[in-house]
Amino acid sequence: MAEEPKNARRFAAEEGRRFMSRALAAAGLPDADADAVAEAMLFADLRGVDSHGIVRLPTYIRRLRAGGINPRPRIHIARESDATALIDGDNGMGHLVMGFAARVAMEKAEARGVAWVGARASNHAGAAACYAMMPLARDMIGLYLAVANNNHMAPTGGVEPLLGTNPIAIAVPALEEPPVVLDIATTAISFGRIRNAADAGESLPEGLVMDYGGRPVTDPKQADHALLLPIGGYKGYGLALMFSLLGGVLNGTATGRDTVSIDEANAPGNTGQAIMALKAANFGPIDEFKRRVDTVARDLRGSKPLPGVGEVRYPGLQGHGTAAERRRSGIPIRPGFVAALNRLAADLGIAPPALL
Amino acid sequence: MAEEPKNARRFAAEEGRRFMSRALAAAGLPDADADAVAEAMLFADLRGVDSHGIVRLPTYIRRLRAGGINPRPRIHIARESDATALIDGDNGMGHLVMGFAARVAMEKAEARGVAWVGARASNHAGAAACYAMMPLARDMIGLYLAVANNNHMAPTGGVEPLLGTNPIAIAVPALEEPPVVLDIATTAISFGRIRNAADAGESLPEGLVMDYGGRPVTDPKQADHALLLPIGGYKGYGLALMFSLLGGVLNGTATGRDTVSIDEANAPGNTGQAIMALKAANFGPIDEFKRRVDTVARDLRGSKPLPGVGEVRYPGLQGHGTAAERRRSGIPIRPGFVAALNRLAADLGIAPPALL
Repeated sequence: MAEEPKNARRFAAEEGRRFMSRALAAAGLPDADADAVAEAMLFADLRGVDSHGIVRLPTYIRRLRAGGINPRPRIHIARESDATALIDGDNGMGHLVMGFAARVAMEKAEARGVAWVGARASNHAGAAACYAMMPLARDMIGLYLAVANNNHMAPTGGVEPLLGTNPIAIAVPALEEPPVVLDIATTAISFGRIRNAADAGESLPEGLVMDYGGRPVTDPKQADHALLLPIGGYKGYGLALMFSLLGGVLNGTATGRDTVSIDEANAPGNTGQAIMALKAANFGPIDEFKRRVDTVARDLRGSKPLPGVGEVRYPGLQGHGTAAERRRSGIPIRPGFVAALNRLAADLGIAPPALL
Repeated sequence: MAEEPKNARRFAAEEGRRFMSRALAAAGLPDADADAVAEAMLFADLRGVDSHGIVRLPTYIRRLRAGGINPRPRIHIARESDATALIDGDNGMGHLVMGFAARVAMEKAEARGVAWVGARASNHAGAAACYAMMPLARDMIGLYLAVANNNHMAPTGGVEPLLGTNPIAIAVPALEEPPVVLDIATTAISFGRIRNAADAGESLPEGLVMDYGGRPVTDPKQADHALLLPIGGYKGYGLALMFSLLGGVLNGTATGRDTVSIDEANAPGNTGQAIMALKAANFGPIDEFKRRVDTVARDLRGSKPLPGVGEVRYPGLQGHGTAAERRRSGIPIRPGFVAALNRLAADLGIAPPALL
């Protein structure tokens, strides 16, 4: 995820955030909303989730301008109970919808101990960890799941793409160590990695991609018209399906055969997501819990590595380190994409991002 | 999971349930508790989770008699809020602790929409799906996770067994179709399958088991002294770790380096588990939701299969079919294990199970 693009240029985090905000405002978002989306997108770029940050800007802008996303949505609670809510995103940017959903979840969890908040009429919301991590500041555990906007996975035993790469993120607060943050898709490989392999002229190992006849695909250039295999065979298929039911069907959104591709710029996606916040202090003294998480984190880091491995890591550690480094040294960006951003800026009549 | 043992004998479901109940009562459980545990164990045998039903009886009995499990626990709520609770299992049978936890979760979810209930001082509870499915009868979605009692998984990049096969189960109600029920461990292969390979004289494919030096293990007979690899590499490692934090560390139970092996008959395991119940009607009309789950289920079943595959399945379908078949024809049991059960019966001074 945090592999450096070849011959990368860099932009300063704050410059990137301001550019994304300018672009979103130029596409019709109110300033405060443009800022909030830019912040969530920058989160991905900082933590090394390079596939979910600024590289998505052209697609978002295209969809905003074509009417596929509503730039001025009335995001609201459609249904609620003491510890649950269903958010109607009114086809707004997913980052805004899930930011709203996370705030509702945290408020309810503060009062009741746990809350589950689903969203319908949402859109792509960027990096899953962004929302799972929001409850951390309130000493809560966060869990986020989403229904992906394209179907690239077939059920085990089948060849029809009825499921997406449906991701899950879970974040757990620690005391002195960086929080434990898992952010994974349910497919064995991401398109980002496939693209990297294609760029590097490498072939893919078997077991990650197959064609519609069930034959293994090892040429990364063929992967666009093929199926991504789930992690652990039927286990990953089952997880993807469950996230589709919990994040999509439960909220009344498009899944399976009804999925609207993110590539259809003018069609509302009716994306579904869900977030859970769980108040850790309800299970024991909060500092004791966080200290025990520290111990687990240190036990893992201090455990015996495989030959050739420097240090064992735990989920979230690499993203934490990448964010610290990128705040200092800037965020790398592919040369080809610099040109795309400059074209986008010209098109929107705004200043392009200054590079370092 | 539902592979038939070779040369299997069979016992009728009700006969198996009564035998397990007799044995547990003889080991000190009150009759009602013995019945409840036997029922939960039979659930596993019926659904084809053969590794988590009657085959566990000798271990449970040994631990009950050695003082490793408390036969007459005071299972109680140690902490609670509107939508959360921490159950103290008082070192009772895990089946009783998690049955109690599930009831608390469903009551709270009925009132608040969702509930998260953790357990400490619990023990092995059998099949994960058993508890995730309890909320189905009340039109709730169930989610269960557990910290396994033995560490067989190393963190990715490491070789120290600091994590278990920590399972998750999620159950979603449908209207006319069998419910969607996922029940998976976070390792790529289970010991049950490894044993099957050993019995059949087959070798294991690479990528499932490795030795403490990181080398692949393909001889199933070597797997007892080796590491089980997680599903999807670091993804499965991350999931196992998260379930350990959510099911164990949050509840103040033994995890990581502190894990007590289930093989130490006289040591309380302080096992941790958690269950969530989510009231589906809070997100829209319940029948509409369940009908949409039916549609997803039928779309999957009706989708194009791989060459050589009869029908595409969804999680829970096979277990549902196995249970129906086994209620009719009885539950298969390995010949070698029949002898073990007869010895156990003699030892406890109870009648052995009648076989079909």
